[in-house]
Amino acid sequence: MAALPAIDLMQEIEAGFVAYSAGKAVVPPVGELVMRDPPGDVHIKYGYLVGDDFYVVKIASGFYENPQRGLPSSNGLMLLFNQKTGEPCGVLLDEGHLTDVRTAVAGAIAAKYLAPSEVVGVGVFGTGIQARLQLQYLAPVTACRRVVVWGRSQEKLEQYQSDMTACGFEVTTTTDAASVLANCNLIVTTTPATQPVLAWRADINHGMHITAVGSDTPHKQELDLATLGGADLIVADSLSQCITRGEIHHALLHETIRKDDLVELGDIITGKSAGRRSDDQLTIADLTGVAVQDIQIAKAVYEVSPG
Amino acid sequence: MAALPAIDLMQEIEAGFVAYSAGKAVVPPVGELVMRDPPGDVHIKYGYLVGDDFYVVKIASGFYENPQRGLPSSNGLMLLFNQKTGEPCGVLLDEGHLTDVRTAVAGAIAAKYLAPSEVVGVGVFGTGIQARLQLQYLAPVTACRRVVVWGRSQEKLEQYQSDMTACGFEVTTTTDAASVLANCNLIVTTTPATQPVLAWRADINHGMHITAVGSDTPHKQELDLATLGGADLIVADSLSQCITRGEIHHALLHETIRKDDLVELGDIITGKSAGRRSDDQLTIADLTGVAVQDIQIAKAVYEVSPG
Repeated sequence: MAALPAIDLMQEIEAGFVAYSAGKAVVPPVGELVMRDPPGDVHIKYGYLVGDDFYVVKIASGFYENPQRGLPSSNGLMLLFNQKTGEPCGVLLDEGHLTDVRTAVAGAIAAKYLAPSEVVGVGVFGTGIQARLQLQYLAPVTACRRVVVWGRSQEKLEQYQSDMTACGFEVTTTTDAASVLANCNLIVTTTPATQPVLAWRADINHGMHITAVGSDTPHKQELDLATLGGADLIVADSLSQCITRGEIHHALLHETIRKDDLVELGDIITGKSAGRRSDDQLTIADLTGVAVQDIQIAKAVYEVSPG
Repeated sequence: MAALPAIDLMQEIEAGFVAYSAGKAVVPPVGELVMRDPPGDVHIKYGYLVGDDFYVVKIASGFYENPQRGLPSSNGLMLLFNQKTGEPCGVLLDEGHLTDVRTAVAGAIAAKYLAPSEVVGVGVFGTGIQARLQLQYLAPVTACRRVVVWGRSQEKLEQYQSDMTACGFEVTTTTDAASVLANCNLIVTTTPATQPVLAWRADINHGMHITAVGSDTPHKQELDLATLGGADLIVADSLSQCITRGEIHHALLHETIRKDDLVELGDIITGKSAGRRSDDQLTIADLTGVAVQDIQIAKAVYEVSPG
């Protein structure tokens, strides 16, 4: 993982999204294992880019009682195989870190293409690892260092404020979601919420971009239906995945939005689909995590790793 | 892999089938990646026994042009993770060998419970690795050492005859499938055929057991429909898998057999379902390969491996 700073992850993962939306990636449906005692879930994402050297399998787990045992909740690894012979090439024992990073990079890509021209405040929902990585990877994409962070725990908010202040951000904490909406026009939600943490307010009506990265299962949900219903543009990392999991999935079920209005991130990057048309639009990116991100980060790390 | 002789694989894998048929195994649908250039397929099988220590992910590939490059067609590995925390525990770089072995062990289990009381000849369709392993793992289950092997290539038949004779079998070769049926009452089909290699002959009508292990995808097929239609008992390793792949899948599609008449191997082992009723019955076991076999062999090898 020491290799990460040497890699242009934005470029690699943008190329992955472009290949995916162009139909040049083979990415079967996500495999899933659910454990009950203690509760945990495992996602198996796998696939390849047509004509590439490798195929990649990523196993990532979340066991939410792990922190009570002094262990991180996330774990996992990535495997690379020769796409032409099946021979195993490498195991990246990343303990879930590369999944966290490729998720943060996707957030930065969404902001690069969809944020208003001037970001006046970055709003972050959540105080965990992803809430930190999103800021870190957003830094090259926006000059704004003003951050409003929302959370439920005062202690975690203060820890986040302290840590991210040390990284050069100017951080205000809040437990009131409306205060994030009022003060920020680039918002990232990073919680494992199963009830919306961000609810639309008609009285706070200015252009903004929201990237939702927390919801990657059918049950999780961070944005209320009114927010999706009010959006001028909704972008999915993967249309096929977002139909069955994440924010878009809920809004489609309730017929708040129509499938035909959705576009894919890879098509925004190439310009095949139109992005934001003016600074007063509300745009939303729903990121459920696509195996092309795993493929691209695994290859990039493997290729610069010693041995 | 040096650990294999020290393990009672029959017992471990029987326990796996029993747990599976009793609903105590969590085994999601098989993940599949298909490559076109060069042609290959990758199967990802994963799951766990409820209350067990591990969850297991197995990746196994077949690249059928590999032998032209001097490489074996099969490859892959097995991974063990802590079922309660998600921590990776071990990687078994078996290059597909454990998949070959657990498949052969399942064949031996099928023969143990379903073969006629006196085996007069073992018929083998195919001359590859699985055709060899099946004989090796059948040896403890039957006293019969008379073998008739069917294949298309005289050269491969002779190599098989020579190799298996050295292992203590009395091997006759043939390119005529009817000759296998006429001389054997325990038959194993191990080919990657997509057109039946074993066609039923009404004039050869004696009790026998047939285990079909070669067909593990929707397209592969080793037994003709008349054979399944004429069977007194058809046993699936996994009913849910056999509905979508393997011999049973073809016979169900053509309404040659009825789903209600099928039983699962784990239920035969426990006696919950009745097995063979007399020596003149035709019984068939359709083995598509279930993740519980991978789970059981991976755990057994991991637990006796040094380090």
